[in-house]
Amino acid sequence: MSRAYVASVGMTQVGEHWRKSLLDLMVEASLQAMNACPSIVPDRVIVGNMFSGAGSNQEQLGAYLASQLNLVGVPAYKVEGACGSGGAAVHNGYLSVKADESEAVLVCGVEKMKDLDVGRATAALAMADSAEYTQFVGATFISLNALTHAMYVKKHGVAKEEMAGFPVLGHRNAASARHSMFKRPITVEDVIRSPIISDPIRLMDSSPICDGAAALLIVNERKAKELGDVMVEVAASEVAANLFTIYERPDPLDYVATRAAAGRALAKAGVKIGQVDFIEVHDAFSVTAALALESMGVSGPGQAPKDVTKGRFNLDGELPINTFGGLKGRGHPVGATGVYQVAEAYLQVSGKAERNQVKGAKVGMTHNMGGVDTTTSVHILRREG
Amino acid sequence: MSRAYVASVGMTQVGEHWRKSLLDLMVEASLQAMNACPSIVPDRVIVGNMFSGAGSNQEQLGAYLASQLNLVGVPAYKVEGACGSGGAAVHNGYLSVKADESEAVLVCGVEKMKDLDVGRATAALAMADSAEYTQFVGATFISLNALTHAMYVKKHGVAKEEMAGFPVLGHRNAASARHSMFKRPITVEDVIRSPIISDPIRLMDSSPICDGAAALLIVNERKAKELGDVMVEVAASEVAANLFTIYERPDPLDYVATRAAAGRALAKAGVKIGQVDFIEVHDAFSVTAALALESMGVSGPGQAPKDVTKGRFNLDGELPINTFGGLKGRGHPVGATGVYQVAEAYLQVSGKAERNQVKGAKVGMTHNMGGVDTTTSVHILRREG
Repeated sequence: MSRAYVASVGMTQVGEHWRKSLLDLMVEASLQAMNACPSIVPDRVIVGNMFSGAGSNQEQLGAYLASQLNLVGVPAYKVEGACGSGGAAVHNGYLSVKADESEAVLVCGVEKMKDLDVGRATAALAMADSAEYTQFVGATFISLNALTHAMYVKKHGVAKEEMAGFPVLGHRNAASARHSMFKRPITVEDVIRSPIISDPIRLMDSSPICDGAAALLIVNERKAKELGDVMVEVAASEVAANLFTIYERPDPLDYVATRAAAGRALAKAGVKIGQVDFIEVHDAFSVTAALALESMGVSGPGQAPKDVTKGRFNLDGELPINTFGGLKGRGHPVGATGVYQVAEAYLQVSGKAERNQVKGAKVGMTHNMGGVDTTTSVHILRREG
Repeated sequence: MSRAYVASVGMTQVGEHWRKSLLDLMVEASLQAMNACPSIVPDRVIVGNMFSGAGSNQEQLGAYLASQLNLVGVPAYKVEGACGSGGAAVHNGYLSVKADESEAVLVCGVEKMKDLDVGRATAALAMADSAEYTQFVGATFISLNALTHAMYVKKHGVAKEEMAGFPVLGHRNAASARHSMFKRPITVEDVIRSPIISDPIRLMDSSPICDGAAALLIVNERKAKELGDVMVEVAASEVAANLFTIYERPDPLDYVATRAAAGRALAKAGVKIGQVDFIEVHDAFSVTAALALESMGVSGPGQAPKDVTKGRFNLDGELPINTFGGLKGRGHPVGATGVYQVAEAYLQVSGKAERNQVKGAKVGMTHNMGGVDTTTSVHILRREG
């Protein structure tokens, strides 16, 4: 049984890629990762994606990508867990190396959302929740999160200026990142004056509809050593499911899957949360960042917005989060996001994060959710030596 | 690193399940498998499915099923490889046991096709091929297979009466199977007089549009021994991708992915093709059965239709195939098919195949394809002792 390492990463800029297809995006990110390690030929291709079928009439993305890269004969398939598809795909790459069934896995996350108008994109995202009930009654993915946002604010008396700390942080970090969608820092005023899209969630609380692809080469220990580069281990890879929809849960503000996945990941990696140097957290909305950080024990109940406002999560703060902008700033091409996060964590712990470098970062954690904490994955990356 | 075993299986009857939802079907099959081993609580849920998104506006099936089974906290996700989704899902269950990341995995394949009219179902199946080119020019999944059927007949001079041997065999075996869709044996005359749906493919050469779900519990060696039942090992699990579309391939009649997956699986299991007691082969169309059997070396080029006509593949023949009817007779709920096949192989090697029992079956092989041999998986099940 081998340990798994990230050997290289590739990312398209997140944005509105009107002139690039699903395949173009996957190939661009994958070739970046592969060209960084020309001696390695992937022996498996795993694609993370949520709605290429409903959105682009395209399935079988695993073989589609493998074929385009001329990797005939390798295992190839797509892994889906709504907006958590990317993290679940990375998990599968990790599994196949750990099982000694692969030496070098190409994991690629991709989503092409902008080809859909807002109504269709909203409908596609709502597929993360039950068609029979949640979609039927007209709830959308945004409105479910708006319910938790309202509950959260009511329970803890959080000011909207404090919640605004998350998008402000995201845009600030994104401004200096190569692959991010948004390059303009925003202020608390910008957030609280932005239009409400599902009360109380405002436009600037929400990650954007966008296109993008990210890729990783995950290799076994032998291959990683051969490369002679810095060794970045996938020290833990955990996925956890929650009760499917928020109205089934005893406490919708308790991200049970986040807590389970983060707890198991920290235990497997032998790391305490205080030893993590930064976290890429799933800020699909401001409230999801707050609830995730609180459910994994980073902040006390109702405290995460205060922590972000006080600067605790800044790049030079005690525990930086979303170091390249997170879902709000870098962008959230849903099925790709979990792969972007792990790629970003790799850049941080290997010291390749350029202007977004967290000084001395050695251990990083990523947190990716499908639905409202319904399929949640947590990865811990650790630099050896 | 543990070996992987099939502990139990569950299958809905394949058919037209107008009154059962995707979730109903998954739960029915899963509870059958789980109730057969009440001492086992799955620690992972993997769903194989092709087009729940485009077909039923439903994604995140992994967590959907896990939640309904009250398996909160376990890893859960969907695996997709078009009509090969089921086999790819089984492969992932195998990987997670082999990686010692799971002790008991629930793998469920499901597809609900009948809710779509024929046009929409045809469009959904066409997502297995390129939206940008193949779908754009109006080719369907059936017409691609019709091209290979025409090439095959021309190259080898196969009579349509010989090709008809596959559906005749499928219906004969399905007639005595509990979970099959079709219960009426058919004749060669029935096949060659049935309407042409994409020249030269006739209605009776084609597997049906249908609904169904199948489930497996895949456990590690320790759990399998605890159960004290017959030990059925997943002796090999291989997935292989081919060049994406048939017009890119040097020889469209050479199922390269089938050959690769079968070759590797036999090598890993340490079994020669002549030692396999039966094969569940992906007869989406008569021609795919023929080409698959020839590509895996069971029949010589152009010989498979003659072999089936001569009775070589009958239940009491030299090498039985599609022992419960295959895709044509049992039915082909696409993302579920690969799981049905492995469940059927389990029934055979464990001696639980009732009226469809292959006498003395100990080693069985299953073959599941997404697209035209684009994402192909091969599993070998072997009874120990």
